[in-house]
Amino acid sequence: MRMYDIITKKKHGEALSKEEINAFVEGYTGGDIPDYQASALMMAICLQGMTSEETCALTMAMADSGERLDLSAFGTLTVDKHSTGGVGDKTTLIIAPIAASVGCKLAKMSGRGLGHTGGTVDKLESFPGYDSSLSPEDFFRQVSEVGISVIGQSGNFAPADKKLYALRDVTATVDSIPLITASIMSKKLAAGSHSIVLDVKYGSGSFMKKAEDAEALARGMVEIGKSCGRNIAALITNMDTPLGHAIGNSLEVCEAIEVLSGRGPEDLVTVCKELATTMIRLCLEKSETEARALVDNAIKSGEALETLKKWISAQGGDSSYVSSPDKFRKSTIVHKVLAKEDGYVQHINAEACGIASVTLGAGRITKEDKIDHAAGIILYAKPGMKIMAGEPLAELHTDKKESLPEAEKMLLDAVRIGAVKPETLPIIYKVVG
Amino acid sequence: MRMYDIITKKKHGEALSKEEINAFVEGYTGGDIPDYQASALMMAICLQGMTSEETCALTMAMADSGERLDLSAFGTLTVDKHSTGGVGDKTTLIIAPIAASVGCKLAKMSGRGLGHTGGTVDKLESFPGYDSSLSPEDFFRQVSEVGISVIGQSGNFAPADKKLYALRDVTATVDSIPLITASIMSKKLAAGSHSIVLDVKYGSGSFMKKAEDAEALARGMVEIGKSCGRNIAALITNMDTPLGHAIGNSLEVCEAIEVLSGRGPEDLVTVCKELATTMIRLCLEKSETEARALVDNAIKSGEALETLKKWISAQGGDSSYVSSPDKFRKSTIVHKVLAKEDGYVQHINAEACGIASVTLGAGRITKEDKIDHAAGIILYAKPGMKIMAGEPLAELHTDKKESLPEAEKMLLDAVRIGAVKPETLPIIYKVVG
Repeated sequence: MRMYDIITKKKHGEALSKEEINAFVEGYTGGDIPDYQASALMMAICLQGMTSEETCALTMAMADSGERLDLSAFGTLTVDKHSTGGVGDKTTLIIAPIAASVGCKLAKMSGRGLGHTGGTVDKLESFPGYDSSLSPEDFFRQVSEVGISVIGQSGNFAPADKKLYALRDVTATVDSIPLITASIMSKKLAAGSHSIVLDVKYGSGSFMKKAEDAEALARGMVEIGKSCGRNIAALITNMDTPLGHAIGNSLEVCEAIEVLSGRGPEDLVTVCKELATTMIRLCLEKSETEARALVDNAIKSGEALETLKKWISAQGGDSSYVSSPDKFRKSTIVHKVLAKEDGYVQHINAEACGIASVTLGAGRITKEDKIDHAAGIILYAKPGMKIMAGEPLAELHTDKKESLPEAEKMLLDAVRIGAVKPETLPIIYKVVG
Repeated sequence: MRMYDIITKKKHGEALSKEEINAFVEGYTGGDIPDYQASALMMAICLQGMTSEETCALTMAMADSGERLDLSAFGTLTVDKHSTGGVGDKTTLIIAPIAASVGCKLAKMSGRGLGHTGGTVDKLESFPGYDSSLSPEDFFRQVSEVGISVIGQSGNFAPADKKLYALRDVTATVDSIPLITASIMSKKLAAGSHSIVLDVKYGSGSFMKKAEDAEALARGMVEIGKSCGRNIAALITNMDTPLGHAIGNSLEVCEAIEVLSGRGPEDLVTVCKELATTMIRLCLEKSETEARALVDNAIKSGEALETLKKWISAQGGDSSYVSSPDKFRKSTIVHKVLAKEDGYVQHINAEACGIASVTLGAGRITKEDKIDHAAGIILYAKPGMKIMAGEPLAELHTDKKESLPEAEKMLLDAVRIGAVKPETLPIIYKVVG
C-alpha cells in the first residue's frame, strides 16, 4: 500500500479503506511517511471530504496510535467534558465539582493554555500548592475518594493526532469537519471515560463560524462516540463573545466560586447547568428533569462548593481560598478602560480579549513562557448592554505597566458600540444526543 | 504575505494574485517555504484549478526563477520544439535538419533519457565523437554557421520548476493542466527561442489519456506563449503506440536517417512533416502550403540529410555514419520475438515497450546508469496489421543475454492481438494556433 496511491484515491474523491487509513496513520506516526505527502492528503481530505466510515476509521487509528487511560476500575461512572475552546471558559472548574458531588467520577488530564485560550491546569494552579503532576496511584485514589482529579497532560495519548495537528496548523488544513472530529474524538477515546459531553462552540470567537457547521461537527462526533459504545451528547453553544465576565486564571477561579455559590453571570450559569445536567443524565442514567434537580440542589445545598474544597485540598492546594477568594493575590495595577461613546454594546470579540489578556501576562505565547495567575480582564460590558461615554467597559489587571496601552487599545477595538440595541443570541443553540 | 494565507485562499477556490504567486515561487525556490506547505498548495490547485491569468503568472515566475538563454543575436529566426514525451520519438533528429536547411535556427538544450522515455542527447551520442557539452561560444557559432546545435542541459533554467516537479511527482499532484502548462512553458520561455512548436501527445503511452484533455493543455500553452510575444502552435498527436519502428538510441538514429532519405514509416513521416511545416510556417512567416513545399523539397533534394551531416560533423561526430548507417555497432544478440497466435494487432503499449528497451540496456533507471547505444527494439508489428502465429513481432537488440527472457515477456504482453481488425486513429488529431 503506497502513500502515493492513497493520496491519488482521495484526490479523485474516492473513499479510503480502513486498511489504507491505518497504513497512513501508522506510517506517518512512525516517520516513514514524510510531511509533504501527509499535507497533500490532508488538503485532499479538506476538499473531497470523508464518509462517516472513513472518519470513524481515522479516529480509531489515531486513538490506537499511543496509550489509552484505563478507567475500567470505575465501571460506568466516569464522565469527561470537552470544549472546542473559548475565551473565559471556566466551565470545568464549575461542572466537575457539581457532577462529582452527586457520584460521577472525573479523572481528567487537561492541557495548559497557549495563545489566546486558557488552560484548566493553569487556572487550578492559581491555588497555592495545587499539584498537577500526581502519580498514577495518587490520581486514581483521589478520583475514587473525592470523585475528581485534574492533572496535566502526561503520557503518550493519540500521538498521531499531535503530529498531524501540528502539520494541519501550518498547512491551512484545520477546518475540515472529518479531521476535527477525528482529532477530538481520538483523544477523548484514549482518555477512557465512559460518558462524554462535548461543548461545541460556534461564533466569531470559535473556528466554527456558523451554528449549522457546529451542529454537523457535533453530530459526527456523537455518532462516532456511540459506535464505540460510549454515552455521549453534545451542546452547541454560542462563542461570539467571552463567557462570563472574567478572563485570566485566578480571576476565572473567583468567578467559578461565584457560580458554585449560587451567583455568577447568567450566560456562564446557563451553560454550566446545561453541561452538568447532561453529564449527570448520561453518567447516572437519570431523566433530564432528575438530572437538572440534582444540579440545582448541588449548588443550593453547598455540596458542589464543598466538593471543590475537597478536590483542591486533596491535590495539595490551599482550599481556604475557596471560602475567602479575596486571599488570591491582586495585580499591582488595576486599570479601568472607559467607553469612548454612548450606545449599546453590539459585540465583543472574544479572540481579541484573549490576546489582550495574554498581553497583560495571563497567558503564554510560547510553551516556555511563565504566566501571572493574577493578570487578566474583568469585562463589565456584555452584548446588548447600554453604556455611556466615560463609563467603564472593563478592568485590566496586570503587573506589567508597559503592557497597558496596547491591551487597552485591543480592548477598545474588541468592544463594538452602536446606536441600536442589538439582537442577542441565546447562549445554547441545541443539545444533540 | 504568508504562505498559510495563500494556501487558504486557493483552498477556498479563489484566484491568487500575481504577487501571491511570485511570493510562493520565490519563497519555495529560496528554501523559505517548506515542502509540506508547497504540497498542500499543489493539491489545492489540482482540485480547485487556476484561471489563465494565474497559470500565466505561475509560468512567468518559474521562468524568471533562474537563467534565461539569450538568443536575441538570431533575431526572430530561432525555433524550438517540445514534445510532452513518448516512446520511439526521434522527431528532433529529423525536423531540426529540415528546418535548419531552409534557414531556421535551432539552439537547443536537451535532456537525457530517464525511465521509459529516451533523450535526444543520448541518441546523438550514438555518433562516435559527438560532443554534447560545447562552450557557449562554440554553441552560438555553430547555430550561426550550421543552423543547429543540440547540447545537454546545462545552466540553471527554471529551477523553481525543477524543485516543484520533484515534489509533485511524489505527492500525486502531477496531473493538473495549469501545473503542467506552467512547468513546460516556463522552461520553453527560459530557453529563449522566438517560435515554439509543441507536440502534445495523448493516448495510453502519454499522461493525457484523452484527446480533449491534450487539446485543453495545448490551448493553454499556446495562449501563454502568445501573451509572451512568442510565435507558437501545438500539434495534438496520438501516442497510443510507439512512434515508428525503432526504440533505442542508434536504432532510432538509423530510422531518422531513413526519413531524411525520403523513406521511413508512415506515422513517423506524417508527424515529422507536420511538425517541420509548422516550425517553418511560424519561424519564416510562410503560408502552410509554402512551408509544406519547403519541407518536401528539403527531403527530396537531400539538403536536410546534408544538414544533418554538417551538424554532426560540426559537433565533433563522425558524419560518415549518416551515409553508411551500417557502421553503427550492432548488438551481439539480435533476438526475434514471435507471435503466439493469429490475428490483428489491436494495440501496442508504448510505455511497456519503453521499459523493455531499458531492460535491454538502452536506457537508464537511475541518472548514473550507463547506456548501451546499440540496444533496443525494432517493432515489426503496428496496430491494424494482420499477423500469424510464428511470425516475428519484433527484434530485441542487446548485449545482455540475461535480460532477454524478461524483455521478451514484456514485449509479448505489450502487443495485444485479437480476431477483429481494429479501427486505428489518425496520428495527428489537430493543430492548434
